Amino acid sequence: MGVLAQQVVAAIQSVVGDTKAGLHEPKFTSSEYRLVQNCLDSTMVSSVGEYVERFEENLAEYTGSPYVVAMSSGTAALHIALLVAGVGPDDEVLVPALSFVATANAVVYCGAIPHFIDSDTTTLGMDPGRLRDYLVETTETQKGRCVNRVTGRTVRALVPMHTYGHPLLIDEILEIGKEFNLTIIEDAAEALGSTASGKHMGTFGDAGILSFNGNKIITTGGGGALLTGDRKLASRARHLSTTAKIPHKWKYIHDEVGFNYRMPNLNAAIGCAQLTKLSVFVERKRELYLEYKSAFSTVSGVRIFEEPEGCRSNYWLQTLILDESFEDEIDEILEETNRCGYMTRPAWTPLHKLKPYETCPKMRLEVSESLARRIINLPSSPGLMRQ
Amino acid sequence: MGVLAQQVVAAIQSVVGDTKAGLHEPKFTSSEYRLVQNCLDSTMVSSVGEYVERFEENLAEYTGSPYVVAMSSGTAALHIALLVAGVGPDDEVLVPALSFVATANAVVYCGAIPHFIDSDTTTLGMDPGRLRDYLVETTETQKGRCVNRVTGRTVRALVPMHTYGHPLLIDEILEIGKEFNLTIIEDAAEALGSTASGKHMGTFGDAGILSFNGNKIITTGGGGALLTGDRKLASRARHLSTTAKIPHKWKYIHDEVGFNYRMPNLNAAIGCAQLTKLSVFVERKRELYLEYKSAFSTVSGVRIFEEPEGCRSNYWLQTLILDESFEDEIDEILEETNRCGYMTRPAWTPLHKLKPYETCPKMRLEVSESLARRIINLPSSPGLMRQ
Repeated sequence: MGVLAQQVVAAIQSVVGDTKAGLHEPKFTSSEYRLVQNCLDSTMVSSVGEYVERFEENLAEYTGSPYVVAMSSGTAALHIALLVAGVGPDDEVLVPALSFVATANAVVYCGAIPHFIDSDTTTLGMDPGRLRDYLVETTETQKGRCVNRVTGRTVRALVPMHTYGHPLLIDEILEIGKEFNLTIIEDAAEALGSTASGKHMGTFGDAGILSFNGNKIITTGGGGALLTGDRKLASRARHLSTTAKIPHKWKYIHDEVGFNYRMPNLNAAIGCAQLTKLSVFVERKRELYLEYKSAFSTVSGVRIFEEPEGCRSNYWLQTLILDESFEDEIDEILEETNRCGYMTRPAWTPLHKLKPYETCPKMRLEVSESLARRIINLPSSPGLMRQ
Repeated sequence: MGVLAQQVVAAIQSVVGDTKAGLHEPKFTSSEYRLVQNCLDSTMVSSVGEYVERFEENLAEYTGSPYVVAMSSGTAALHIALLVAGVGPDDEVLVPALSFVATANAVVYCGAIPHFIDSDTTTLGMDPGRLRDYLVETTETQKGRCVNRVTGRTVRALVPMHTYGHPLLIDEILEIGKEFNLTIIEDAAEALGSTASGKHMGTFGDAGILSFNGNKIITTGGGGALLTGDRKLASRARHLSTTAKIPHKWKYIHDEVGFNYRMPNLNAAIGCAQLTKLSVFVERKRELYLEYKSAFSTVSGVRIFEEPEGCRSNYWLQTLILDESFEDEIDEILEETNRCGYMTRPAWTPLHKLKPYETCPKMRLEVSESLARRIINLPSSPGLMRQ
């Protein structure tokens, strides 16, 4: 085993101890068991029930988002957010090249085309400076719409994503949205508990989405939510995610092609319990960052990623970044850490390198590509701390 | 209150007693609580975990389907079934006019067009005789494809649906599929526990789907499953429903536009417990049918729907059908029964009458329309029986 891989294993071990450590495991206490039992007692385990509403209310309170619509996944929430934002067939939607594939998939579900944007090394999110220059160069305004001069298609929306929970430069992104008439849908799937200037991520744009998948900072088994300050948009999102059925005691009238995306009450019950612990989880994960930072301070060739200035990150996944001169060692480090029982993973394959997205429009993506060769996520469960 | 409405209330009361009765409420015992607790103990509440696999294996055993893929809803399962069957943009798919809206929605998700088919009064499902005549009149075979002579589009698939759990004439439908080169995707969302000639519904066509929504004969909160005897088709369905990720210890490579449709382990845990009771539920619901049949035998102008010959229905929802001469009284009967605490509902609005489907191709649909004016579903929970 090479020297760097050995040093990385030793540093992780000094933080999490000798036992195996997953990438991100949920933590349940008596409250999850109790609420799930109450939910079974009520027999209301499906899409109607008190926990769905309570979870939405609690999320609204925690995030400060006036409206919250709980759904079956973050992907579902992003699909609906794009639809209610008016994204339709043959529109283009600007998404980060460095993201989970769902960000681009949701665009395709609307019949639209993802258009890939490069990252900023200080936030891991979209680079607003280069994004603006690129839009000035490649688009023009026609009748209030931003039009791609190369493809002739309307660029309808911009989907900034907060990578591993770290807020990107949201104010600059909002400015670009205004300047180029782009709807902003924040992909805050990983950023529950993160804020910028005290405001929760996902609440800056026209709408935002959260994910509660099993590996997220809180989980509902599977689930997601749409956040918005726009009452009409929230109402239409709720309608579309519940088969577009017009409320009636017994009649089945659906006025649009809707979706079966509502979060089941059973899953919302777990969410209600998890949400009461979120502040503690965020604190623990911020402490875990400090532990890793200290443990890696003596390892040369790598750095632990630190939250950008002016914001407070949930540090959902701890992130090690290799210097460019060490990027060839990434496979060995992943191999060794996983062999030793410390679950690590690299960044996603940049989306423009995936077969279904190879031919999509894109700007120069050298930062995303470089980061993807150098990022390693470390064990990040809220239960992990040096004993 | 009119005489018939009064008689219907009295007949329901004689079966279910004086207490309120929902349309279909699930029944949980200690096993659901135990398996959900075990699932929380494992912390594996999301899309990976033993219960998802066990639920799939148990469903395979119960239904006799060689392959089963659990998903987040019946709608999701139907969407994926249509995709793996090769349904794509601008294809037409033959679906019943009398069905829940999800049957048509899933076709639209594939970019295809629903084409509505009329019902048979003896099964409430597609009428194979009239369907065949209609296809002879309106389609022709071009290079092995069934082509709609009016629209010029390929008619790719046929989606027979087993209404309220009652099997339709599946052998005749399969014959039509062969004759006209149509893929058969069985919408058995309501038919878990129903068989024809001893074979489980959903296992006759190229693929079939089940639903485990809160009101179904067994529930997982929200959920569905795809059934198929085709190994490759099952494998592709599993792939597409799990973001089309190529299995790898840590790399994120997705080779198609996939979906986040996997059933969470938490929901599968409930499904495993529910499935052990399914045979008992089916027996109870068949007894409930006999109780209703007896209670309504003295009420003129109505009949309780009975399973078609040659099959065994799960009697998921008990169905009262008004004679044509009494169809004007349906609103009063719905009003009165619900007012008295007995939850009833009419059939769905026939799909071709819904705004998003008004302009879709269709055959003459007078039977579906007539049935929709005359069907009332009665309280049908497995826990309901005369004390």
